[in-house]
Amino acid sequence: MLNRASLQPPFYANIFSYMPSADREGYAEADEATLAEVQHVPGFLGYEVTGTDTRRIFISYWESMEAIDTWRANRTHVAAKSHGRQWYAAFHSMLVRVESHTVWHPELLG
Amino acid sequence: MLNRASLQPPFYANIFSYMPSADREGYAEADEATLAEVQHVPGFLGYEVTGTDTRRIFISYWESMEAIDTWRANRTHVAAKSHGRQWYAAFHSMLVRVESHTVWHPELLG
Repeated sequence: MLNRASLQPPFYANIFSYMPSADREGYAEADEATLAEVQHVPGFLGYEVTGTDTRRIFISYWESMEAIDTWRANRTHVAAKSHGRQWYAAFHSMLVRVESHTVWHPELLG
Repeated sequence: MLNRASLQPPFYANIFSYMPSADREGYAEADEATLAEVQHVPGFLGYEVTGTDTRRIFISYWESMEAIDTWRANRTHVAAKSHGRQWYAAFHSMLVRVESHTVWHPELLG
């Protein structure tokens, strides 16, 4: 899912920290469609997600801010984002530059 | 825990994405001690954590890289980190600069 051992800072990420809403109508299909499509975007490096039913963190990793900008303009992504305030009770989305990192058995993290 | 509405980019964060090990001897005490002590470090803005028993993401937020450096030299923190390869089966620790962000009902996220 994410080849962490090959990552060379600086690289970039979007941290999406959120609380799902009660109304998930259409969410599963949009999630599947966007995750399938993002794999083909040049500069996409992978993602990770964990959490509970009420509190989740999703992080996508990117080679450059330009790659993120390309993805932000993607039609499938824009369509999904138009439902953001329906599917999420709360969110905090952050664009970040990774300055440095350390890994320990990163292959186990996926 | 984290006043997201008051955050003004750029700010800084440490993303600690990890898998706990089977050997958690001493972890709970160290976790409690470090979380108590970090509250007093100038420039510490707060933290969030979520995940499952096997896969967790912890993010701490900071005003500056200098504040993070101060914390990295803290004795309680250094002592806890010396157990890292005992308490974690795998981890990926990233120092990041938050370039921009958007929030939606951030008060619900804690």
